[in-house]
Amino acid sequence: MADGGKSRAVVLLSGGMDSCVCATLAARDHDVAAVHVSYGQRTEERERQSFLAICRHLNIPDTLMVRNEALREIGGSALTEDGIAVPTAPLPAEGVPVTYVPFRNAHLLAVAVSWAEVLGAKKVYIGAVEPDSSGYPDCRPAYYEAFNAVVKAGTKEGKIQVVTPLIAMRKAEIVRLGLELGAPFDLTWSCYSQEDRACGVCDSCVLRLRAFALAGVSDPIPYAAT
Amino acid sequence: MADGGKSRAVVLLSGGMDSCVCATLAARDHDVAAVHVSYGQRTEERERQSFLAICRHLNIPDTLMVRNEALREIGGSALTEDGIAVPTAPLPAEGVPVTYVPFRNAHLLAVAVSWAEVLGAKKVYIGAVEPDSSGYPDCRPAYYEAFNAVVKAGTKEGKIQVVTPLIAMRKAEIVRLGLELGAPFDLTWSCYSQEDRACGVCDSCVLRLRAFALAGVSDPIPYAAT
Repeated sequence: MADGGKSRAVVLLSGGMDSCVCATLAARDHDVAAVHVSYGQRTEERERQSFLAICRHLNIPDTLMVRNEALREIGGSALTEDGIAVPTAPLPAEGVPVTYVPFRNAHLLAVAVSWAEVLGAKKVYIGAVEPDSSGYPDCRPAYYEAFNAVVKAGTKEGKIQVVTPLIAMRKAEIVRLGLELGAPFDLTWSCYSQEDRACGVCDSCVLRLRAFALAGVSDPIPYAAT
Repeated sequence: MADGGKSRAVVLLSGGMDSCVCATLAARDHDVAAVHVSYGQRTEERERQSFLAICRHLNIPDTLMVRNEALREIGGSALTEDGIAVPTAPLPAEGVPVTYVPFRNAHLLAVAVSWAEVLGAKKVYIGAVEPDSSGYPDCRPAYYEAFNAVVKAGTKEGKIQVVTPLIAMRKAEIVRLGLELGAPFDLTWSCYSQEDRACGVCDSCVLRLRAFALAGVSDPIPYAAT
């Protein structure tokens, strides 16, 4: 154990508001190593900037930024395929939206678990959220329960655990928790389609803006005039 | 369904003897799409040659070759980290050998399942083998059972199944099955360390040579004089 006796943990950090709060929480309790995966999502450069800025703010020196070529090649999502437009709100009442990236979180978790195995970390944090989210199948508790069984069966010692501290929280509660913990929301990026000013109208912006409004605070990042 | 009514399947094809037999079997029963993942393994160029040659032989037009940057960056294996030598036989009596690539098969399966989801394929074939193998944790039936629960929970329709037709077979039986099916063993590559002539002494070569010897046939690929 390094860093004053804290145990190691790997955190998946996209640079969005949820993963920022998740990383802030993990860094309070663990010696954290943070990973970002670019998979051809429209805003990957902006995400990488946020990732690095958040890691600097949280004093996380151990970072891994990797590209996943497969998800872009495979496409099938508005985030990775140019021919599919990012929809603007309102979100569909039911069903999986076109921003779903097929089986994406398995790719992200595979990277984090491989790295945890090599680092000797026993926990992998991911900021997946079910309520107020986009209805992605890989953001539900049952998915993470199942994934933990794979990690148990498929790693050398079987002792790594994927943890999802935000999974049952409403988005506004995540904002409040982030404020309590001092999460650097000003450094985050959630927009699916723009990299200079957030569009304010994609699924991700709409959910974010609603969360800040419900929490009664203003969102510190810049939005395009709409 | 294309190809005379056959349903679609995605096959993970490294170019080794097991995946070649697995692909031959899959191509008999399905309209196959084949995927190869290069992850910085020492023999990746040679594997890609074998992958393409086997796909040509089996009339598989739909191929995907992708690079996974993360496993090389993460290292921790003799296959991906220059500082760890590929051991020569005998295999250790117990424990996981240094050729184990941490949580590798989750990366491979994630690619195959994402692609299957976009293609509308309902099966993903992988030539994992438990008996006579290197003792990797991600080559055991329990691992695939757990992975199928993840696929069920984490995909849009939850209807894709990972199948492992060779998992309980002895290596010599796989040779016999391949001969029955007409699998192109001459086009395969299994060696962990060399790309021109197989070394004959790494874990993978030793297991392969033993399998052909037990099956009573000669291995058609070239080996270095030892």
